[in-house]
Amino acid sequence: MMITLTTDFGWSSEGPGIMEATILGICPSAKVIHLTHEVTPFSILEGARQMECVVSIPAAIHVCVVDPGVGGARRGIVIRAPRVGYLVGPDNGVLAAALELVGGAEEVRSIDNQSLLRQPVSSTFHGRDIFASVAGHLCTGIPFRDIGATLDLHSLVPAPYGDAVLDAGGISAVVIHVNRYGNCILNVLEGELFNRAQRCTRFVVSTEVDELGVATLVRSFCEVAAGDLLLYPDSYGRVGMALNLGDLAAKGHVQLGSRVLLTYGD
Amino acid sequence: MMITLTTDFGWSSEGPGIMEATILGICPSAKVIHLTHEVTPFSILEGARQMECVVSIPAAIHVCVVDPGVGGARRGIVIRAPRVGYLVGPDNGVLAAALELVGGAEEVRSIDNQSLLRQPVSSTFHGRDIFASVAGHLCTGIPFRDIGATLDLHSLVPAPYGDAVLDAGGISAVVIHVNRYGNCILNVLEGELFNRAQRCTRFVVSTEVDELGVATLVRSFCEVAAGDLLLYPDSYGRVGMALNLGDLAAKGHVQLGSRVLLTYGD
Amino acid sequence: MMITLTTDFGWSSEGPGIMEATILGICPSAKVIHLTHEVTPFSILEGARQMECVVSIPAAIHVCVVDPGVGGARRGIVIRAPRVGYLVGPDNGVLAAALELVGGAEEVRSIDNQSLLRQPVSSTFHGRDIFASVAGHLCTGIPFRDIGATLDLHSLVPAPYGDAVLDAGGISAVVIHVNRYGNCILNVLEGELFNRAQRCTRFVVSTEVDELGVATLVRSFCEVAAGDLLLYPDSYGRVGMALNLGDLAAKGHVQLGSRVLLTYGD
Repeated sequence: MMITLTTDFGWSSEGPGIMEATILGICPSAKVIHLTHEVTPFSILEGARQMECVVSIPAAIHVCVVDPGVGGARRGIVIRAPRVGYLVGPDNGVLAAALELVGGAEEVRSIDNQSLLRQPVSSTFHGRDIFASVAGHLCTGIPFRDIGATLDLHSLVPAPYGDAVLDAGGISAVVIHVNRYGNCILNVLEGELFNRAQRCTRFVVSTEVDELGVATLVRSFCEVAAGDLLLYPDSYGRVGMALNLGDLAAKGHVQLGSRVLLTYGD
Repeated sequence: MMITLTTDFGWSSEGPGIMEATILGICPSAKVIHLTHEVTPFSILEGARQMECVVSIPAAIHVCVVDPGVGGARRGIVIRAPRVGYLVGPDNGVLAAALELVGGAEEVRSIDNQSLLRQPVSSTFHGRDIFASVAGHLCTGIPFRDIGATLDLHSLVPAPYGDAVLDAGGISAVVIHVNRYGNCILNVLEGELFNRAQRCTRFVVSTEVDELGVATLVRSFCEVAAGDLLLYPDSYGRVGMALNLGDLAAKGHVQLGSRVLLTYGD
Repeated sequence: MMITLTTDFGWSSEGPGIMEATILGICPSAKVIHLTHEVTPFSILEGARQMECVVSIPAAIHVCVVDPGVGGARRGIVIRAPRVGYLVGPDNGVLAAALELVGGAEEVRSIDNQSLLRQPVSSTFHGRDIFASVAGHLCTGIPFRDIGATLDLHSLVPAPYGDAVLDAGGISAVVIHVNRYGNCILNVLEGELFNRAQRCTRFVVSTEVDELGVATLVRSFCEVAAGDLLLYPDSYGRVGMALNLGDLAAKGHVQLGSRVLLTYGD
């Protein structure tokens, strides 16, 4: 079975490899996939968005460790989500956006069972001692109920962002990820925007500090000229905003968490 | 079977992991190796050079996604190259330099067969939907002819650089890669330069902006003093240029694509 | 069997993937784990510290290539260490700190056996041609004596740092790693400091250039307020120094190799 890892440890850290080794020590047949370890440090916003990408990977165990509260009172949880398998991580909202995008959870359990943890549990590396360890045991096929007590889904910390609302005046969105090309992913659902796009394919885009210009809603970067602003489907169900062959984040002074206003241009 | 991945997505992207998961979903026994994901964004020049490194890995499926034209008209192709296995990627020249270095292709096919792709095919992530998917199916052992129509090798987009010519006056070379140490790889064939070196082991080096000094052609960095300029075999068949224990790219203002002139110094 | 890789090649290099492919070519059942490839270039100090992390991974083959002397006279060695398996790398001190932390070696051998190397051995990429190749063969189960001649443990190049001594006046320590959060790992043994902490939990911290303030010795970051200085166990047996939710390295001008003085504050 596949186990994906998403953290803010950075690739310069040995942490991701130590987590992989911990998993393989428990379940030698696991296939560990490093999804990303470059979530902006402590950013639950970006961590939550990165976890949305697991919609591409059905039937796996998806571990996320973006956990500024490590060692504190926050719970560790495992969510069973029929369309993507299991989500494992801290109860700080980092799993919630993905959950919504894949159609919800079947069951949530608190990580209580001490025999599933690497002992002694450190207070600084729960990625190894709790989350990788539990994922390894899940991968061996233990019953889900062995993890711990069931939790009410509504008791979980909510996602750090909701879906942007498309109303008559326009769309007020948030940048939930900036990639290396400077493309900016918005909390706008692809399906909603492309539905509306039957009536409108051009949007005036502004941030709190800048007017970015008019963006064209397209399926492919090639549909606009080099340097032009576009809105495009991001491959996971959200809408991205970019300059074709350019760096929007740098040129438009857009960053993680920036608010973006899209108004209908035609 | 091994499948190597080379892209310009950056390690901060979830893309490489998503590609790996896509492959494993199709062919669970595949062994996915991440060669590099830090090709300079959109640089077909550097992507082509990075693919040369597959000369070290015989009998694998080598996937390259450096693809500024994603979603546009460029073809996806698979090349069968007896000495390294298969090369998979866009037809934009990025596979061609490696091909030449390993002694050429046996057969090229266009990726036409829709049943080998992840459906629906997005217009922004062909790395997942086309290239990883086809690589996964190849890895399961499907016949090569199932990929699509054969293509004339001469119809492919050529490599972004050729081999530097060693003529009587000197060598006019191009920097095809700069590594983290600041070492600069040139489009000079190791075999050719070391053959000539029976007569000459010192070269005056200059770029369009700078005189870099005299470089000694050696087998090992240790053969020159710290800080000295050297030319050395790069482990894959090309010649690198470096300052021993120093950063040539920074100190000599050399970058990807810089032209370098080597004239015989003795 | 697991094989871990630690290098200073950088993740932008194809080197780590080439090493993995070399290993899998020799031992297809090996499970290769990339521990880190972002050791500061040529830093034997940081490489040695990173190798300490293998204390988390028993019974593996641990390869380290931080090797400014590649191609020169330094020996390649394999150390058998009962509590972590095998350590493979150059004899330049990079394996020695880990060795000490895991309770010492049983036997050391020089890499002499040419039939275990990838031929021809290049003079610039021993990571592939010597260390990955030997690790792959070890993984297939060859007798340890086939590696080469036994070496006297005392003949090895010593570790680049020892354990900081806790004396009556305080502790003079060295920063042996700085992570992406700006946390600074010291050459102070966790066990020793926490033993002493029964008498003292506050330390006045200074570097050669700065007074950093008073640090509290805690088990978990959450025990101090945001922005406060703390000392904490680093998950591998050493003590780290950090600002809770802040970047100590940047704010305190601390870097790899900095000297830090801790004096007892209560």
